[in-house]
Amino acid sequence: MFVKTHTTEIRVRYEETDRMGVSYYGNYFTWFEVARTDYFRGKGISYRRLEEEEGIGLMVVSASCRYIRPSTYDDVLTVESRISEIKNTSLVFAYNIRRGTDLVASGETSHVFTDRSRKPCKIPAGIKKALSVST
Amino acid sequence: MFVKTHTTEIRVRYEETDRMGVSYYGNYFTWFEVARTDYFRGKGISYRRLEEEEGIGLMVVSASCRYIRPSTYDDVLTVESRISEIKNTSLVFAYNIRRGTDLVASGETSHVFTDRSRKPCKIPAGIKKALSVST
Amino acid sequence: MFVKTHTTEIRVRYEETDRMGVSYYGNYFTWFEVARTDYFRGKGISYRRLEEEEGIGLMVVSASCRYIRPSTYDDVLTVESRISEIKNTSLVFAYNIRRGTDLVASGETSHVFTDRSRKPCKIPAGIKKALSVST
Amino acid sequence: MFVKTHTTEIRVRYEETDRMGVSYYGNYFTWFEVARTDYFRGKGISYRRLEEEEGIGLMVVSASCRYIRPSTYDDVLTVESRISEIKNTSLVFAYNIRRGTDLVASGETSHVFTDRSRKPCKIPAGIKKALSVST
Repeated sequence: MFVKTHTTEIRVRYEETDRMGVSYYGNYFTWFEVARTDYFRGKGISYRRLEEEEGIGLMVVSASCRYIRPSTYDDVLTVESRISEIKNTSLVFAYNIRRGTDLVASGETSHVFTDRSRKPCKIPAGIKKALSVST
Repeated sequence: MFVKTHTTEIRVRYEETDRMGVSYYGNYFTWFEVARTDYFRGKGISYRRLEEEEGIGLMVVSASCRYIRPSTYDDVLTVESRISEIKNTSLVFAYNIRRGTDLVASGETSHVFTDRSRKPCKIPAGIKKALSVST
Repeated sequence: MFVKTHTTEIRVRYEETDRMGVSYYGNYFTWFEVARTDYFRGKGISYRRLEEEEGIGLMVVSASCRYIRPSTYDDVLTVESRISEIKNTSLVFAYNIRRGTDLVASGETSHVFTDRSRKPCKIPAGIKKALSVST
Repeated sequence: MFVKTHTTEIRVRYEETDRMGVSYYGNYFTWFEVARTDYFRGKGISYRRLEEEEGIGLMVVSASCRYIRPSTYDDVLTVESRISEIKNTSLVFAYNIRRGTDLVASGETSHVFTDRSRKPCKIPAGIKKALSVST
């Protein structure tokens, strides 16, 4: 399986900086989330519709980030996202955040699909297929 | 009706500052919210239980804040909250945020009570009574 | 003086919702901020550069928002911003947030320009002129 | 070296929940930060003073969290923090977040001490000593 990386652009908000003058470390996880939504959209999937119409959730099991260079207000960052692992009920997203060609941060989030009762469930076949297509 | 002011203590988080070195202006509205929850608790009401068990919501209709002095990381702030107006379906909270005796900010939030279908509804009699008691 | 409204697009993030299922009320003030930065950029002014190179700040004096319709995750919102008042040291921004043609919220923020010592100062002539041009 | 765990109490804010009804995953990193500040205070160190008076920073190099049970609005959580590793210029904090005896999440953050020029520097001797005392 060859999966192309999806890219999402973010502009750092004033609110996202802290008094050290740089982006607060917790906000990188919000940017990962924005990239995930956008990744799904790039595959023709509305995560919102999945949630609202099918009761599917994408629960976070673990998350990590390495901070390589600081970013700050008004920086335009590119979040590269790709699915690095996909199983029956779970998947892993990997991210690189860049400013131009500079690597600012990299991270991972692991997720389990859940049904209406918030129990882990199989990734719906249509979703799995859409996510596995290398476009 | 004489309503005593309720006080809630907040310690400013690093996350809540911005690169100007002070608390970001939007966070004051979060502190107002923390004070509201605490105000209800002070009246023997769990806003969480209201929401979970009775489907009651406290929708925000408007909010405002005047910023008088900056606050920053690790400041211990006192949020004074009181209900300045209460009607059949709505109420208004007024707040003062102080650091020691210095007034840091003051604000207001207006709310409408809503039922399970998210429609405006009468404030439940028991709640209205509890909120009106001057203790 | 005729000032055209500037528009900025926002897509609501999952992080910005709360357990009522809608956008948390404090986040509207972050969106106002994003719109302000974008407004300045539309006038050829980098607020970041103003701050970093000239030590100019745009301190918030007051802020308010009226919430008319809820918004939620993945909604694409348009923030219309304009300067409704400009004086020697201060200005007022007015905002409308729309989803399509529906008005979701409207608000205002008042600001004072400050110099390196964080004292109120005159709006630099070049900035005032740029902001006053009706393009 | 035996280092006792420090505990800090957090009450989940409405703002910190998302439309899944639970605490948004990025907020756990804010709670880790609140616990760090509190950990330092427990050792007689004001991180704020360190920063303001000595220009010392505690830059985040990496952060991770495992989410074991969801938490939600108004939950009272206990953040246990301890230093799991301390070297010449860096240290690692480990955290467990509990609700009562239930483990909600666990995580780690790695930090490098920086000086006024934002370059990595040795942990000041007094700080290192204070952090190493097992009280």
